[in-house]
Amino acid sequence: MKDASLDPTDWEEYRRLAHKVVDECIEYLRTVRDRPVWQPVPAAVKAELSTPMPTKAQGAPQAFEDCLRLVLPYPTGNAHPRFWGWVHGTGTVGGALAQLLMATMNANVGGRDHGAVYVERQVVGWCRDLFGFPEDASGLLVSGTSMATLIGLAVARHARIPVDVRVGGLMGAPLASVYASAEAHSSVAKAVDLLGLGRRSLRVVPVDDEGRMDVPALRAMIDRDRQDDLCPIAVVATAGTVGTGAIDDLESVATLCSEKQLWMHVDGAFGALVRLAAPLAHRVRGIERADSLAFDFHKWLHVPYDSGCILVRDGREHRAAFSSSASYLARAQRGLAGGDPWFCDLGVELSRSFRALPVWLTIKEHGALRLGEKIAENCEQATYLAARVRDRAELELCAPVSLNIVCFRFVGAHGASGNVDALNEAIVADLQEQGIAAPSTLQLRGRSVIRVAITNHRSTRSDFDLLVESVVALGKARLAEALP
Amino acid sequence: MKDASLDPTDWEEYRRLAHKVVDECIEYLRTVRDRPVWQPVPAAVKAELSTPMPTKAQGAPQAFEDCLRLVLPYPTGNAHPRFWGWVHGTGTVGGALAQLLMATMNANVGGRDHGAVYVERQVVGWCRDLFGFPEDASGLLVSGTSMATLIGLAVARHARIPVDVRVGGLMGAPLASVYASAEAHSSVAKAVDLLGLGRRSLRVVPVDDEGRMDVPALRAMIDRDRQDDLCPIAVVATAGTVGTGAIDDLESVATLCSEKQLWMHVDGAFGALVRLAAPLAHRVRGIERADSLAFDFHKWLHVPYDSGCILVRDGREHRAAFSSSASYLARAQRGLAGGDPWFCDLGVELSRSFRALPVWLTIKEHGALRLGEKIAENCEQATYLAARVRDRAELELCAPVSLNIVCFRFVGAHGASGNVDALNEAIVADLQEQGIAAPSTLQLRGRSVIRVAITNHRSTRSDFDLLVESVVALGKARLAEALP
Repeated sequence: MKDASLDPTDWEEYRRLAHKVVDECIEYLRTVRDRPVWQPVPAAVKAELSTPMPTKAQGAPQAFEDCLRLVLPYPTGNAHPRFWGWVHGTGTVGGALAQLLMATMNANVGGRDHGAVYVERQVVGWCRDLFGFPEDASGLLVSGTSMATLIGLAVARHARIPVDVRVGGLMGAPLASVYASAEAHSSVAKAVDLLGLGRRSLRVVPVDDEGRMDVPALRAMIDRDRQDDLCPIAVVATAGTVGTGAIDDLESVATLCSEKQLWMHVDGAFGALVRLAAPLAHRVRGIERADSLAFDFHKWLHVPYDSGCILVRDGREHRAAFSSSASYLARAQRGLAGGDPWFCDLGVELSRSFRALPVWLTIKEHGALRLGEKIAENCEQATYLAARVRDRAELELCAPVSLNIVCFRFVGAHGASGNVDALNEAIVADLQEQGIAAPSTLQLRGRSVIRVAITNHRSTRSDFDLLVESVVALGKARLAEALP
Repeated sequence: MKDASLDPTDWEEYRRLAHKVVDECIEYLRTVRDRPVWQPVPAAVKAELSTPMPTKAQGAPQAFEDCLRLVLPYPTGNAHPRFWGWVHGTGTVGGALAQLLMATMNANVGGRDHGAVYVERQVVGWCRDLFGFPEDASGLLVSGTSMATLIGLAVARHARIPVDVRVGGLMGAPLASVYASAEAHSSVAKAVDLLGLGRRSLRVVPVDDEGRMDVPALRAMIDRDRQDDLCPIAVVATAGTVGTGAIDDLESVATLCSEKQLWMHVDGAFGALVRLAAPLAHRVRGIERADSLAFDFHKWLHVPYDSGCILVRDGREHRAAFSSSASYLARAQRGLAGGDPWFCDLGVELSRSFRALPVWLTIKEHGALRLGEKIAENCEQATYLAARVRDRAELELCAPVSLNIVCFRFVGAHGASGNVDALNEAIVADLQEQGIAAPSTLQLRGRSVIRVAITNHRSTRSDFDLLVESVVALGKARLAEALP
């Protein structure tokens, strides 16, 4: 079959297969509520997913059939209305179709001059406007906030350490320090680590009772470090802590950073987008003063994984930290190799997928207003759930509801006794294994709690009613079992 | 509309829209040859792609219509049979459908216990077996070789610098050095830079006439650096240089690394996968001895962007360089939070897309044998093109064809005279702007050459015939124009 491509020999037959696959996808999403949130992968399926690489072609019908049979029935669960574990987005049917288009074009958006580049620039522009960043701010779509924070701190490292780190490395550099609160996400430590600054450089700022960075304490730490001849470079403020959804006082952090000439990076993985929700936008006031901002589309905007963004206020600093010159990446005045600047000059990746397309289509399909309303609604649902928890003597609310996260636990009718931590961990595993709901667990001030993070456009109030009833029932059943 | 999700109000109507979109995608790929390889984005389209974020919903039909009208006509061009610029994969219709399924499930493969995890483990296992890595090697699907190399060198940094870099950073560390050839890809320098080692730590090893690393010179550089109290940690060997497709002598590099106790990382972005092609597999002999190996699926396996892989021989070293503990990422014995180890312990990303699925489906649909045959065929096409170039007095072959890359230029019937560099750059831009073909340009030993990198399953010999005729015709026309 010399010169035969990997294309179908019979396009019409393939088209029929594609329609079948689309119908399966639509039906899968339409009926998601009717299935368990989660179910374990059976041993027989695991065995089928352990076979060696197929040498011979199975053909498309068999391959897709295998996918429908072995893979689709065992999702993470986040498309389900009662998935509230960690912070996962729901996805949408339009987002799924967008990925089909994205892969059909198969654009490489590392650079050059083609349609995908203008779509990404438009999406970055929308974000720049949304967050009140200046016209010459730059941005890049990335796989998520972990990567975005890595990029933001790489720019900070280059901009604020007074030696040329890109050339000379950190080996002779002053001892830089980066500040983040005790509730900051582990991706901040990961970025500091990867950048060669070492976790010792990450100064952990205490938080107040609401989980927000203690800004006076931050000020004292910076002053002390400067006295000790350390080199403070950046503060990472959090808009929406992963534990309880707390939002640092961004205005105060911005003012302090400005005074101390430190880089202000905001980890707004899910919280930044409350700016889309009119009643909540004030909660992230000050975000427009950040030097860099990291956030996700795949969480509260429900764009399919993976999809996040980094914005950098000073576009020149952004490019200065990442650009390189290689002859095979030379820019031309005309033709396909035009389009300078190229996105590869703003981050780690050279080959880049067209991940702007699902963001673009999601925002166009639903509009910013409606997407913001869904965010506000999730926060109202968190308040609703907290009220239901307070109503029940068997349950205890374990943290104030700041945004969309509710931490509570089952303590029984007579208050906590015995191994309440293990009991609540067991309840969460029961909920998951029985396919009822998928919250996750969290250690909060030394106690295991049930954590419900609501970034789900399919959840309704009745779903939270069911959660409360199920937790109480499962807790009681486990207590009864434990009795002699 | 309290509690109304972002789901369609009329699923049947949405299903019809989805079928229309699928038909457009299938037709787009079926007829790709009939369209220009590339065309510039018209000013009117650029203007439409510069409007502010839509507040109101446009609805799915309008949003997808906009995509078909504004975006799909202006691709990078890599789906076309005559796209040979840089090193881009072609994509397949099955891969596009796979992305639809991937986004429908919307799995987050950072960790936990669900189907996508077992698919990624299976794909990693296939790669481990393909490259002769041991049973306890670990691996991770990533966005591409840039990220894979960053991870490989992060593991090397942690494993081979004799201080705890993750905690203390590099500020007190010995001056590490990393070796790569003069033909190594710019992503190696980017990784060294980002890791805080500084580009000065990247020692550039000279290459032989074929573009391969000079291993005796490497040995001498390591010895000299050790005498100078530097701390050599890693050698990056290249399997398929971006310029000419040269493959370093991996056996010799492995032997030297073993003797000198250095980490051997292989950048096999496109070249590693020649291991799938029986007549070529011997070219990467020694790759099985690498400590880490970075390569792409989105290039020569034609999986849609983005899709690459990092393999690390010693899985414990891999985890030791990346794992962290955070209470909200606690692993459970049962339920959804099982499945330890989690993929987020092996790289930068915590939220991770299910990018294993398109790889899995591509390999199942076509089989390893056929995918390898297509790789071998691209190399035969390179040899064919080189022969056609040699046949023509107006053309000059500028580098030996090592694999799948042909570098040549137009010199006119009477040999090179005048600004031949500018002439060849103009010819490439002409080819692109006229939609005939999309090679890229390269500076090779100080000269601008036309570079044809063949990682395209749709190319046929006649496409290369057309390229040769077009280059000669365009070159002659430009020479004629320049005459008085």
